[in-house]
Amino acid sequence: MNAREPVSLDLRVRGIGESPTLAINQRCAELRRKGVRVHRLGLGQSPFPVPSLVVETLRANAHRKDYLPVRGLPELREAVADFHHRTDRLDVPAEGVLIGPGSKELMFLLQVCFYGEIVVPTPCWVSYVPQARILGREVRRLPTRFEDGWKVAPEALDRVLSAEHDPYRPRLLVLNYPANPHGGTYSSTELEDIVRVARRYSLVLLSDEIYGQLHYSGNHVSVGRFYPEGTILSSGLSKWCGAGGWRLGTFAFPPRLGWLLDAMAAVASETYTAVSAPIQYAAVTAFRGGAEIERYLCHARRILRALGDRCLATLAGSGMRVHRAEGAFYLFPDLGPLAEGLAARGIRTSEALCERLLDETGVAVLPGSVFERRTDELTLRLAFVDFDGARALAASETTPLDQPLPDSFVEQLCPGPLEGCRRLADWAAG
Amino acid sequence: MNAREPVSLDLRVRGIGESPTLAINQRCAELRRKGVRVHRLGLGQSPFPVPSLVVETLRANAHRKDYLPVRGLPELREAVADFHHRTDRLDVPAEGVLIGPGSKELMFLLQVCFYGEIVVPTPCWVSYVPQARILGREVRRLPTRFEDGWKVAPEALDRVLSAEHDPYRPRLLVLNYPANPHGGTYSSTELEDIVRVARRYSLVLLSDEIYGQLHYSGNHVSVGRFYPEGTILSSGLSKWCGAGGWRLGTFAFPPRLGWLLDAMAAVASETYTAVSAPIQYAAVTAFRGGAEIERYLCHARRILRALGDRCLATLAGSGMRVHRAEGAFYLFPDLGPLAEGLAARGIRTSEALCERLLDETGVAVLPGSVFERRTDELTLRLAFVDFDGARALAASETTPLDQPLPDSFVEQLCPGPLEGCRRLADWAAG
Repeated sequence: MNAREPVSLDLRVRGIGESPTLAINQRCAELRRKGVRVHRLGLGQSPFPVPSLVVETLRANAHRKDYLPVRGLPELREAVADFHHRTDRLDVPAEGVLIGPGSKELMFLLQVCFYGEIVVPTPCWVSYVPQARILGREVRRLPTRFEDGWKVAPEALDRVLSAEHDPYRPRLLVLNYPANPHGGTYSSTELEDIVRVARRYSLVLLSDEIYGQLHYSGNHVSVGRFYPEGTILSSGLSKWCGAGGWRLGTFAFPPRLGWLLDAMAAVASETYTAVSAPIQYAAVTAFRGGAEIERYLCHARRILRALGDRCLATLAGSGMRVHRAEGAFYLFPDLGPLAEGLAARGIRTSEALCERLLDETGVAVLPGSVFERRTDELTLRLAFVDFDGARALAASETTPLDQPLPDSFVEQLCPGPLEGCRRLADWAAG
Repeated sequence: MNAREPVSLDLRVRGIGESPTLAINQRCAELRRKGVRVHRLGLGQSPFPVPSLVVETLRANAHRKDYLPVRGLPELREAVADFHHRTDRLDVPAEGVLIGPGSKELMFLLQVCFYGEIVVPTPCWVSYVPQARILGREVRRLPTRFEDGWKVAPEALDRVLSAEHDPYRPRLLVLNYPANPHGGTYSSTELEDIVRVARRYSLVLLSDEIYGQLHYSGNHVSVGRFYPEGTILSSGLSKWCGAGGWRLGTFAFPPRLGWLLDAMAAVASETYTAVSAPIQYAAVTAFRGGAEIERYLCHARRILRALGDRCLATLAGSGMRVHRAEGAFYLFPDLGPLAEGLAARGIRTSEALCERLLDETGVAVLPGSVFERRTDELTLRLAFVDFDGARALAASETTPLDQPLPDSFVEQLCPGPLEGCRRLADWAAG
């Protein structure tokens, strides 16, 4: 938006652009239309198709036309509660579940309702801070360090919260793991250490565990196990179920945060009303799980782990530093060690880094700055998802799950991300 | 929500309940579970199934899983532009179309972005004012009169706008016709008179024409024909296509309001992201129209007109005053002429009216107060939609469209609303 004529826009929305993850997707499409060969490591969309059982359920419910209850179809709320019970060993009551058109929308409504400071460890997912800006909310960024695996250090959190005239103000702390943008995750011990601080300050914890089912060894641990009274657990169909475009997210509230759920439901009833009915019926099948979906997940995890490791190995030799992904489908390399050479090429910010990379190699990634890192830090996020997920799943099915994928698998079935990483490594080194 | 313990809620959302139209639906469901016979004249949901051609398209696109562009699937934006061209004779460019998860959500985002006063003629749809409240926006209510058919009187509008120290402040005027809650609509001449005032004050006009295709004689005229430069045209699948539960709404902007479209798309990218992909593909079929959908609409209109007229006739003898519906599926009776008798029964507000009516007759309607009328005005909205729409359509198909429906049609096929009106009339009379 670039309005010179007088317009009547709220200052809080002036100058915001479309969300960078979506914008990069649209920019890649434009470049491709112009005939440029683009290596899309930008948008973080699951490469896999929606499990066929779930698609079948959508077909069978295509005629559903009634407005559903604001908080969600009762069977779906129960299925989500059961899902968290089954996969996270959490006692989430069905009455504590809220269904929304994407967890992004739910996070926005949470910010509409919650009156307090939002504490966001960085690097973080791209939308938390712009949402706060749109609503005029305060955000406290909590930078993490490469050396800590980009994870929240409990002492640093405590220091930030206590170094205030009003340490006990209402606060919402956002956690996200397996993490976008870096694929790292927390151990039980690390979570317990964070919870100790959260409890000391009575924080509300928004735990964005939408990639939980894409923990590569299937060992995701929800922080809700250690802080049940203060955790809002966020999930949805977009990542583990491959249904980003369907738009269905879930929040699970503990009874003690029922006041937030009630307020959000009231605002939901004045905004999105309810999630699309056919989609909700289909989601019941997804959250109920079962052998077919479990197998789908096991194959997806094995493929993503193999590909992530290959991408990591490809980048590692180039001089940048990067952590191994333990879940999701991202790497977050830091080109800091190559700063001198990059500066000599005129590259001093993550934006310049990504623009030049795209121009000179056709590799599209996102700069660390959109994940709320300092603009002079030479980080970037790459998503290794631009391959034919259906074909990769079918190929993976021919190797028993207790065996590793053949060495040639990634090269043959996920050539796009690998080629992108090679180009990035060569370009960075060079 | 009734939080006595200390909670950290924004004051603007404290105390708001779920939207009354949805709440009445849930209350009816509860009463029915208790075995109470409820006559549901509360929720305004289309009684008709989604046209089978459209349901088929959803089935065929159940596998679509990609995130779609924020503003909407290009084919759908084109289909919506073509729809307005075809049905409203408007030159809306496809680039001016924005797809959202319901027009309610789009109106909310419009209020997030637009910085100015919102002028809402009353009685009005239930969500405009609560949305403004949630966002801390100013709303100027413009009460209309029964004698004017609940329509905006241009002189009254002019008087309100000019009686200010700052008559030219940025303002958004909301029009809605065929109207929820009263079924009335505007003629071309009336629209031209309103546009004259709108142009004088450079108002932005949000014209909610979601019932346009349910104008009983198919002669809906969009105000965009007279005020193309300043009109945002709102529509969607919920009413004419019977797909309320699918959640798909549309806004069409003129090029001069591109700055608002851009800002809303940016906010959309940080909130709902895009509308559910399978639903958008299905909506293309709906907006493209064709003979089957046209026939569906003709039958729907004929049924609604016959039923609306019978309901009107049933109420008319009871002493209340009520206008004939010309579109949509609502009547908005005013029981003012019966005020004395009602007061003798302890009924002095529209809320008391509706509560007592539900308790004593099982008829569920909504009080005029939720449509922003004074609480001591004895108005109520009834929706005449609680019948088997599929069966009614099938029966209507046996009578050629150039003939009237048989006298017995409404009695046999839409007994619920008729019985509700009889009970209301008997109860009101005495």
